[in-house]
Amino acid sequence: MNTFGTKFRISIFGESHGQGLGVVIDGVPAGLPIGIADFEADLSRRRSGAKGTTPRKESDLPELVSGEFNGYTTGAPLTVLFRNENTLSGDYSHLVKHPRPSHADRVAKIKYNGYNDYRGGGHFSGRVTLGLVAAGVVAKKILARYGIRISASIKELGGITDPSRWDSVIEDAVKGLDSIGGIIECRAAGVPAGWGEPFFDSVESVLSHLFFSVPAVKGVEFGRGFASAALRGSENNDPIISADGKTLTNNAGGINGGIANGNDFMALFEVNPTPCLSSPQHTWNEETGSVETLVVRGRHDACIALRAPVVIEAAMAIGLAQFSI
Amino acid sequence: MNTFGTKFRISIFGESHGQGLGVVIDGVPAGLPIGIADFEADLSRRRSGAKGTTPRKESDLPELVSGEFNGYTTGAPLTVLFRNENTLSGDYSHLVKHPRPSHADRVAKIKYNGYNDYRGGGHFSGRVTLGLVAAGVVAKKILARYGIRISASIKELGGITDPSRWDSVIEDAVKGLDSIGGIIECRAAGVPAGWGEPFFDSVESVLSHLFFSVPAVKGVEFGRGFASAALRGSENNDPIISADGKTLTNNAGGINGGIANGNDFMALFEVNPTPCLSSPQHTWNEETGSVETLVVRGRHDACIALRAPVVIEAAMAIGLAQFSI
Amino acid sequence: MNTFGTKFRISIFGESHGQGLGVVIDGVPAGLPIGIADFEADLSRRRSGAKGTTPRKESDLPELVSGEFNGYTTGAPLTVLFRNENTLSGDYSHLVKHPRPSHADRVAKIKYNGYNDYRGGGHFSGRVTLGLVAAGVVAKKILARYGIRISASIKELGGITDPSRWDSVIEDAVKGLDSIGGIIECRAAGVPAGWGEPFFDSVESVLSHLFFSVPAVKGVEFGRGFASAALRGSENNDPIISADGKTLTNNAGGINGGIANGNDFMALFEVNPTPCLSSPQHTWNEETGSVETLVVRGRHDACIALRAPVVIEAAMAIGLAQFSI
Amino acid sequence: MNTFGTKFRISIFGESHGQGLGVVIDGVPAGLPIGIADFEADLSRRRSGAKGTTPRKESDLPELVSGEFNGYTTGAPLTVLFRNENTLSGDYSHLVKHPRPSHADRVAKIKYNGYNDYRGGGHFSGRVTLGLVAAGVVAKKILARYGIRISASIKELGGITDPSRWDSVIEDAVKGLDSIGGIIECRAAGVPAGWGEPFFDSVESVLSHLFFSVPAVKGVEFGRGFASAALRGSENNDPIISADGKTLTNNAGGINGGIANGNDFMALFEVNPTPCLSSPQHTWNEETGSVETLVVRGRHDACIALRAPVVIEAAMAIGLAQFSI
Repeated sequence: MNTFGTKFRISIFGESHGQGLGVVIDGVPAGLPIGIADFEADLSRRRSGAKGTTPRKESDLPELVSGEFNGYTTGAPLTVLFRNENTLSGDYSHLVKHPRPSHADRVAKIKYNGYNDYRGGGHFSGRVTLGLVAAGVVAKKILARYGIRISASIKELGGITDPSRWDSVIEDAVKGLDSIGGIIECRAAGVPAGWGEPFFDSVESVLSHLFFSVPAVKGVEFGRGFASAALRGSENNDPIISADGKTLTNNAGGINGGIANGNDFMALFEVNPTPCLSSPQHTWNEETGSVETLVVRGRHDACIALRAPVVIEAAMAIGLAQFSI
Repeated sequence: MNTFGTKFRISIFGESHGQGLGVVIDGVPAGLPIGIADFEADLSRRRSGAKGTTPRKESDLPELVSGEFNGYTTGAPLTVLFRNENTLSGDYSHLVKHPRPSHADRVAKIKYNGYNDYRGGGHFSGRVTLGLVAAGVVAKKILARYGIRISASIKELGGITDPSRWDSVIEDAVKGLDSIGGIIECRAAGVPAGWGEPFFDSVESVLSHLFFSVPAVKGVEFGRGFASAALRGSENNDPIISADGKTLTNNAGGINGGIANGNDFMALFEVNPTPCLSSPQHTWNEETGSVETLVVRGRHDACIALRAPVVIEAAMAIGLAQFSI
Repeated sequence: MNTFGTKFRISIFGESHGQGLGVVIDGVPAGLPIGIADFEADLSRRRSGAKGTTPRKESDLPELVSGEFNGYTTGAPLTVLFRNENTLSGDYSHLVKHPRPSHADRVAKIKYNGYNDYRGGGHFSGRVTLGLVAAGVVAKKILARYGIRISASIKELGGITDPSRWDSVIEDAVKGLDSIGGIIECRAAGVPAGWGEPFFDSVESVLSHLFFSVPAVKGVEFGRGFASAALRGSENNDPIISADGKTLTNNAGGINGGIANGNDFMALFEVNPTPCLSSPQHTWNEETGSVETLVVRGRHDACIALRAPVVIEAAMAIGLAQFSI
Repeated sequence: MNTFGTKFRISIFGESHGQGLGVVIDGVPAGLPIGIADFEADLSRRRSGAKGTTPRKESDLPELVSGEFNGYTTGAPLTVLFRNENTLSGDYSHLVKHPRPSHADRVAKIKYNGYNDYRGGGHFSGRVTLGLVAAGVVAKKILARYGIRISASIKELGGITDPSRWDSVIEDAVKGLDSIGGIIECRAAGVPAGWGEPFFDSVESVLSHLFFSVPAVKGVEFGRGFASAALRGSENNDPIISADGKTLTNNAGGINGGIANGNDFMALFEVNPTPCLSSPQHTWNEETGSVETLVVRGRHDACIALRAPVVIEAAMAIGLAQFSI
């Protein structure tokens, strides 16, 4: 379903080419200063425009439909609505019989018996993350009351870890009508020791639930993650070196037994190369009953990872807000 | 909290050295043949005994307290209870002031104001996964009705991928009073296309939520996972090659847009080297207010990853059971 | 919180005098024919206009922001938005210091530290039931697939059970600047035997949860309800008289052990006289620190029960939709 | 399902004639003093023994399987287990083909395809409320920290409000091999103003959800309830008369807009005459395909309402614990 959370609960809605999309945010404490301007910084980080991002331009101006009064949150559900503007839906109609590889086209058709809005991926579009980012803005305001700061950044693009070479690897992908993936790191500082629960509401469980809700994320690790598998316990353990729980190393990424231990959170995310390509691909044509070459025109991101950090931050913030008191 | 699921809901309880532990399983269809013998195979895979596992021996005999009648599930909550037998609780009392590094000792004390049962990790013990494995047995029965088969296996131990060398790497760890981690692979065959939901109930979201509930798991990836970040879209996309949705490659691990696409599920899991070591470690002594050397006697697993595959299978089964119809 | 349901999940939002209000409906099966016209009949039954209802006039035109495509539901969240038009917010500012008796003014101020939108009751306004009615329209469409029909009607107004006298009792209340309550009956025919769960998801539990969410409802009974307390078991029991479970009497209102038994559902609801009156009342003035006379101008319903049946039907439909298969 | 609550979550399990029954309680604050003796007072109020209650005798000795350590709650799930002892299961086998009127026999058989444990009502038995009462004991401990006191008592038995006549009305029912119902009142003092939520988590919604989970409850009203329908608003409104929100009358039963207003909670509950009778009744015989006379031997309560107040208190306490901070 499209609702997440108990204490801080979000319900996202909308499609890429429909009337609009957005989020209803429940459990917002009353009295947070809030206005449209508060959303601008994060929305602009998500917005396309840079090289390697889609030429579809949207102003993404949020409307606060409910939950705001005189510049403050009221405690009632906060609804943030975005109108779609720049929709060229004619681009997509041929995909009904000819699903794009590695996209949701085919599974959506099966799941919804062909009634899904297939235009631009419909409800499966990355555009629906607008609601996540908006909710993240509010969650960050809650977390700021605890002194928690979240920041995500790109660590690798197209297999390259050296940032000086990213421009050229993106350019190559654009020229090749292809796409590239990336790896994002997200950190959270200031999470109070004791947040989290054992087992099903472990910090890692709640956060990974949200991280894997972000389209294109196919891998998540906390702390040293997969690399810890090759370490011995004596190397991987983080010695506690002060009364406030600070550790000499932070291989655990700030989380023991599912509970924050007072050290910084650190997590890594794999972001797939977007499956939407302008180059020819092979896929099944349901009408002809054979594998055929598909060329998707539309407007695509050659490197969706460029726009992902702020979405990952939002997921982290929404997740941590579940544990606030 | 300690409950997971809506359609198939499990509530786990218990501590390592208390009276017992187990699980209440709700949403079990009536009429599944069930008996104590059904649990034996999976419980024995989780049980210690092999080299590299703890010398603590438990019979782990399940009692079906409720939900079973005349050899079948009744549709009412199925309660599986395990009694603790072989508890040596004297081992742990000194850990109250001297928390083990990278263990939950310190965070549990903070979270529960010192009232937590610290013996053997209490409710944070890996022993609580007995309830998960029991629930997994029931979930697998549900999934078998759909023809779904789940299997997990070890892919790497102590940084070694060659199985012929695992015995010696374990032996080395035991001799060194140390521990080693591992990487587990889990596959599910036969998941019907269309299972899953967009965003918050994506297959990856629901499954990762459970996977990260398993103690020691710090990394999860689906399909090709982190490796996809270095591929181009044209390499990473899985061409659809038949009417039933089979793909030429399976980089997506059987999941597109959060929805099963009919191909096999494949996921990888990092399992940390257990933080419980018999070798000396440095940690904070809360009484003396200084870093000191801690030697934990107790009984430990040098390689908990050996016992993890069946727990991972259980998590996969419990997660998939949420999507059954 | 403002979300209800697991299988069919609604999230309501909005305030009486804000930008708008509405509902996000998740779990809607794909392929239901849907259009704005489908909402008109139920919305008009909820709309004011008759004698005894508020002179505030609203067109209540729904907008389908998401989840609809080519005249059918898509399976993605269906968002129904209503814009507020006829708001006279100046009426309410004096209520901040002078809360209306038996209204939510004072508790909302306490709960939300004074940040609540107090205009027209804000999020506590009966106007928020627009979202319930809209969700009810969709739920009824789902239930119609099972042959379930729901209808609610007024049984008593102002203590009078004879419909021929209702006009005059309403007129008296209007003239007296007062308000009257009523009793509503709701029936559901065709609910399949077996729907419902024991205990916490009993039909009565789920339905009453929703019924008591409707503002002004202070009493709910199923079947013969309170009257059964004075019967003997031999009188109150419903003899089963046919193979399909039909009973001679229906004192249980179609529900045994929390489960539908195949007979008609019957429930009664008390609807309070609206606490908004134009006549002088005594209440505490927080500024002066004394009991004073309050005269609320605004626009009120003398008999909100007139508009309640369709809201009760919606609650019944939303509740029953949880049990659909 | 058999789980209720988010903040304070209970999962009940068990059958009347199975191995045992009980409850897993999650969200219990660490550090509450707890021991078996704490349960005795409430369990004895629920226990049979008085005239009009079943001759089945059970010691109902609770076992604390998990969540307790050194006499205090640990913060981990608290499991309370009761073993069944005095089971005469031979009494019930003939009910498979001959369901008792107004009992769950027939609906359970339909819902669970005949796999339900039919002995003594199985999971539908009032005996399962043992788990509710146990959870209520814990919830009351939490509420006591806020100064909240809950008490329920009988207001009417067999249609008689005068307590001096109750003994004889019960005796008549026993002699007539019949049963009688009753009306219970429950009050809660000290609930802080501001507890509760608008709409779906209104105090009335959450509480009624639990109240209607109690077998035999068919009517619930808050404050003046159904009687308010015949009052004018000017009569029904509760004038606020002091700075702390005390009202001159308390027709609202302490709740406005779903939120506690600081006045006492008051609610009434109808408890049906138990449908289990020893006198002959008519019901459908599924084997012969005709209405026949059924005589149920077994052991029954002639007046289950006698044992209901402590169950109602438990439901009130469990519900209020959801709102604790």
